[in-house]
Amino acid sequence: MRVEIWSDIACPWCYVGKARFEKGLAAFAHRDDVEVVHRSFELDPGRAKGDTALVVDMLAEKYGRTREEARSMEEGVASNARSEGLGYRIEGRDHGSTFDIHRLLHLAKARGRQDELLNLAYRANFAEERSVFDPETLVALAVEAGLDEAEARAVLADADAYADDVRADEREAAELGATGVPFFVLDRRYGVSGGQPAEVFTQALEQAWQGRVITEIGQSGGDAAACGPDGCEVPHAGPHAGAHA
Amino acid sequence: MRVEIWSDIACPWCYVGKARFEKGLAAFAHRDDVEVVHRSFELDPGRAKGDTALVVDMLAEKYGRTREEARSMEEGVASNARSEGLGYRIEGRDHGSTFDIHRLLHLAKARGRQDELLNLAYRANFAEERSVFDPETLVALAVEAGLDEAEARAVLADADAYADDVRADEREAAELGATGVPFFVLDRRYGVSGGQPAEVFTQALEQAWQGRVITEIGQSGGDAAACGPDGCEVPHAGPHAGAHA
Repeated sequence: MRVEIWSDIACPWCYVGKARFEKGLAAFAHRDDVEVVHRSFELDPGRAKGDTALVVDMLAEKYGRTREEARSMEEGVASNARSEGLGYRIEGRDHGSTFDIHRLLHLAKARGRQDELLNLAYRANFAEERSVFDPETLVALAVEAGLDEAEARAVLADADAYADDVRADEREAAELGATGVPFFVLDRRYGVSGGQPAEVFTQALEQAWQGRVITEIGQSGGDAAACGPDGCEVPHAGPHAGAHA
Repeated sequence: MRVEIWSDIACPWCYVGKARFEKGLAAFAHRDDVEVVHRSFELDPGRAKGDTALVVDMLAEKYGRTREEARSMEEGVASNARSEGLGYRIEGRDHGSTFDIHRLLHLAKARGRQDELLNLAYRANFAEERSVFDPETLVALAVEAGLDEAEARAVLADADAYADDVRADEREAAELGATGVPFFVLDRRYGVSGGQPAEVFTQALEQAWQGRVITEIGQSGGDAAACGPDGCEVPHAGPHAGAHA
């Protein structure tokens, strides 16, 4: 079974939701048969590269609140994060374009290091005094995740590298009806929206596991050009009909 | 959309079916949004490592035929392969355990080189005078596919490396009802059995594309702990209710 998780590094509920999903997955009997894939989603896709602002300032401006009010809005998520054992800083955290981070996460996917980089990027952004909007920090995170430094630098230097993969993920999210993140899709059949309690994820995994039914398309049975433990079949329409191994 | 293809390197219809699937995929409008994953399946899982035999001899013995009759059985598949532009040798090809090849294909998957290695392994087995049952040939194929030689050797030397991944694929094939290969599964929803004509694959891709519907599980809407372009929501059940970005 496969779970795809659309999320953004700048999304606090994605950070919290990932931990809750993993707790729900750990309680699922078939957890060893579950593959998890990260998908890109930008909450602020129009934001220019390099245009960063403090999260608290951004929130205050966006909602017309004081910085104190913005800080208390952040406290709501922070307490949820802390109850999951996650660090969460409010002051000094930047908001900015996450496009380059998503491109780097696609490189990491190609190299089998996606979950490592994703965890490091979340931690850097939410729990540490490191800005994921600084290219040198991204390179350092990539190396910590096990990626080749030169390759990571090359991807960051080439704005086209993995850009289509990021956009394809975002297009798919829209096609699947996602309007926000985190968005969890199980075997392209069931969806869970938001960083819900761990038990919801366990239930969803169980439901998706039970719901695995494949609808056959095309010819099937002895006529198909297929091989099994007892040998191979040549389709009757083919030039040489009959059993074959 | 994702297509998983269960197959075995020793399976002639998998070799032919891969070419037909790729032709069908090339004719599908959303081909750039299709991810293809190889899954392991052994036609002869009980076969011991190192126990090889000429395919023609194995066929003659298995079906109680003469070598000449076995050769003409092979010709049936060969003519199908050739009509797809694929080389196909009958004489000198070995039959044996494909477990190590599947383990190596999982390493290649982790390094983003699976399709490269799969194509090279099929070609070596069916079209070239190279035995995929010889460890040195496997190392050479791995290097040609872009893998690190030392890493490939380490995987081949450690019988446990990626063994669970091979078995997990095989278990999943059984759970999804596959009794033979190639077995194509589209978004875990639709299945195509056998190396069918390219048009069948195009139709299956179109049907699966239309059939993408996600069933929502759990709470949804404004109550979910999710972020969208307009900000983040704190669930009402949470310690700090209200809008948040």
